[in-house]
Order: sequence, then structure tokens, then C-alpha cells
Amino acid sequence: MHNLATRMMINVLGIPAILLMVKIGGIPFLIFFMVIAAVSQVELYLLIAEKGQRPALFLGILLGALWMLTVFFIPQYAFPVLIGMVTILLLAGLFRPIQGALANLATTLLGVFYPPVLLSTLFLIRSNTHDGRQVLFMLFASIWICDSLAYVFGKWFGRRKIAPHISPHKTVAGCVGGLAGAVVTVLIFWYLGWQPDFMSFNQVIIFGILTGVLGQAGDFVESIFKRDAGVKDSSRLLLGHGGMLDRFDSFFIGAPVVYLYITWLLK
Amino acid sequence: MHNLATRMMINVLGIPAILLMVKIGGIPFLIFFMVIAAVSQVELYLLIAEKGQRPALFLGILLGALWMLTVFFIPQYAFPVLIGMVTILLLAGLFRPIQGALANLATTLLGVFYPPVLLSTLFLIRSNTHDGRQVLFMLFASIWICDSLAYVFGKWFGRRKIAPHISPHKTVAGCVGGLAGAVVTVLIFWYLGWQPDFMSFNQVIIFGILTGVLGQAGDFVESIFKRDAGVKDSSRLLLGHGGMLDRFDSFFIGAPVVYLYITWLLK
Repeated sequence: MHNLATRMMINVLGIPAILLMVKIGGIPFLIFFMVIAAVSQVELYLLIAEKGQRPALFLGILLGALWMLTVFFIPQYAFPVLIGMVTILLLAGLFRPIQGALANLATTLLGVFYPPVLLSTLFLIRSNTHDGRQVLFMLFASIWICDSLAYVFGKWFGRRKIAPHISPHKTVAGCVGGLAGAVVTVLIFWYLGWQPDFMSFNQVIIFGILTGVLGQAGDFVESIFKRDAGVKDSSRLLLGHGGMLDRFDSFFIGAPVVYLYITWLLK
Repeated sequence: MHNLATRMMINVLGIPAILLMVKIGGIPFLIFFMVIAAVSQVELYLLIAEKGQRPALFLGILLGALWMLTVFFIPQYAFPVLIGMVTILLLAGLFRPIQGALANLATTLLGVFYPPVLLSTLFLIRSNTHDGRQVLFMLFASIWICDSLAYVFGKWFGRRKIAPHISPHKTVAGCVGGLAGAVVTVLIFWYLGWQPDFMSFNQVIIFGILTGVLGQAGDFVESIFKRDAGVKDSSRLLLGHGGMLDRFDSFFIGAPVVYLYITWLLK
């Protein structure tokens, strides 16, 4: 109950904050998502540490932040910066313990990619098209409604578990309800004329299916990480906040997929 | 002795082959380095497997190959392809064992980056400037001479070990000799007028220092990987060939650093 209350509180404060940041854009938008990425990355590193690996926390966070600044301010240099980051990470291995070097380096790299690089596609979605703001609104709305309806459908109709070894509470009915929620959301956007102006009706429907299916897949990916680490709830790792990984897991997959989708639509 | 003979044989056959591929370019150049990257990647995965992690070998090789094809044929799509690759890798985690998922995913990702992504900068060096071929000739020559002189100086004058916990045979004298070899190489290029035509004398000297220092650093990075895995020689892992990781370790760092250097010079 306490957990649900915290979760609702975060939603009540978090959702308007995110919508506002997407609307105004610029530096506040950048900093807001840099903080989300960095906190998520710390949580991921703490999960990894539960498994005995020792990712280079500070270097990883630094490179993640460097990446997000690059994508925001000088996206045309993203590739050389990426190459530079990987090179620095490898060279940093020379100054760290040899025992476990491979796994520590690899998990540091994973942490740079999983939250910051994947979340940085939000910046590209907003800046690469004149109507990127609407794309982001539709992305956030469809994933939130998807999550909420998945929860409600799961509670009401859920019997058959979908993947109990990964996520013991998720049911087939919940997942179907979530997908339906994402599609209904994009239909409402279409009905109200809020859809990105370069998208046809069919493209909007596909958008809803993508976020509905892959947003939930993102949730499962994070569940696997927690299962592997033997941790039930990422918020337990960093006390005093609500578990950023848990809140944004759908977006770590949903955002890059939408970025790829609109890149393809607009190519 | 047998090892030295094999090594010389590989050099006698390998060096002309590489120079020829750099000269002719095109598909042979692509395939040649794709094979080197893939074999190196398999060796890295075998090293990682020695440590008990289970990277997704086939998927990793496939993504590495996809990456090299992308950089060669459609470099303008490198970033979306990267995002797609990372997303696929994460989703693939849903179909693999949960136990060890974080480390297995992370090491798969490392394998995609360490040989293929870093080596793919060779393609960009060749295609991004009209004189990229000369840059590559100078890169290969300076690293080869660096390696050879490091070996000779180490044998003749080497007493003080430089980092015995990483590489028990490397001496200060060897490293200094290697650096001198790289610088002498670029001086010879300059003297013969073979240097890339956009480079000044000072820029050529800096080139030699970069390859001399960072090529050797690349050698140390690979030594750390082998030390961590408790393996002395990467060739022992894939019998019947000479150990691709050992042969190209200097280039995994040398190539990206030269790519960054000329990107900066030409910006």
C-alpha cells in the first residue's frame, strides 16, 4: 500500500513535470532527462554490484553525461564522441584492477548505453523533426496509459501468467490490456488532432502497437536485470527515491524504437 | 622459437596483404577487415567464456558484421543502426537465461565494440578524406615499426619492467624504442613525401607520437584481458591460426585514435 501511494505520488508530480519539460524543451528538458538517466545508471550499477562485478561508477556516469550533452548540443559529432568514449573506457582499464577487468569494463559500457544512450533518443526525437514535441507527448502518453491499463486488466482479469520466471505478477490479460491502452491512446490523439502532423492514420496505429508491445518488453528487460541481481525493487538500492529504473524501464526500449520508427518514416 | 617463426610467417604474408587491401579498397578491403574483426571478436568471447560469462556469440558476431557493413556502405545511418543494435541486444536477453543476464549482455556488447566498432574506424579514415589511404599506410607502418622496435629494444636494452603485473616481459626500454620507431616511421614518410597531403610537419610528428604511445597502450589493454582470463596467448583459444587479437591489439586503440585525430584536423 505504501508502495502504491509512493507510486501515485510520483505520477502526480512526475507526469506534469515531464509534460512541461517536453513542452518547453531547451536546457531544462536536457537537465531533467540527464538526471533521470544518471540516477537510473547508478541504480543499474548497484544492481550489477549485487552480482559481484565492479563497474567504474564515476567514469560511467561521466561518459553518460558527456554523451547526453553531445547528442543535445552537437549531434553531428555523436559518432566520434562515441568512439572516443569507448577508447577512454578501454584505456581506463589500465588503471583499474586486472581481476575481473573484462566484466567490469563490459558492465560499465552497458551502463553507459542502457540508460543514457537509449534515453538520448528523446532529444533526437524532439529535435530531428519539426513536430517532435507531439511525437514525445504521444510516446509518453501511450506508455503511461499502457502501464496503467496493464495494471488494471491484470488485477481484474489476470489469471494466466505470461512469463512467471521473469515477472511473477504479469499476466496475459494485463499485457493485452496494456497494448489496448497504447492503441486507444494514439486513437484519442488522432481523434483530437494531436498526432504528429507527418503521420498518417495507419502510421499512428503502428506507433501505438510499437509502444504497447515494446514498452512492455522494456519492462521485462529490466525485470530480468533485477531477477539476475536477486533484487525485487530497484528503489531499495538508492534509498529515498522511488526507483528510477522501475519508473522508466518502458522508455529505455520505447524511446529508441520510436526514434527508429520516425527516422524511417522521415527518411 | 616456433612462435616467433609463426609470427614472422604471418608478418611476411599479412603485411603485404593488408597494404594491398588498403590500396585497392572497396569490397575486398571491407571483407578482409570484417574477417579480422569477427575472428578477433570470437577470440574475445572465448576469453570472456574462460571467466564463466556466456556472451551471445552468434548474435554478437552478427551485430558486429552488421555494424561494419553499415559504416562501410551507409555511414550516415550509423547512429540509428547503433541504437537498433543495442535495442535488439537487450530484447534478445528475453530469450536467454536469466542467471547471469547482466554480465552476459554486457560482455556481448563489449565484444561488438572492442573489435568491430573500433576497427570500423579504418573504413571511415579511408573514406572520410581524399587522402585517407595515405593515413592508413602511415598508421599501419608506424604501428608495425613501433612493435618491432619495441621487441628489439626490449631484447637488447630492456631491464626495468614497465608494468610487470600486466605484461611481464615489457620493459621501459622497449616502450621507448617503440615510440621512437613510430616517430622515425612518420619522419621517413615525411622525408619521402608519403604523408597525407593535408598534414603539416608538426601534425605528422604528433601522429607518430599518438600511434607510438596509444598503439602500445592498446597492447596493454589486450594483455589485461588475457591476464584477467588467465590465458597467456589468444592463439591457444582458436587453434590453427595465429591469434588475431594478439596481432591487432595495437590497432583496436590506434585506429580510433587516428580517426579522432584526423576528424579533428579536418573539422
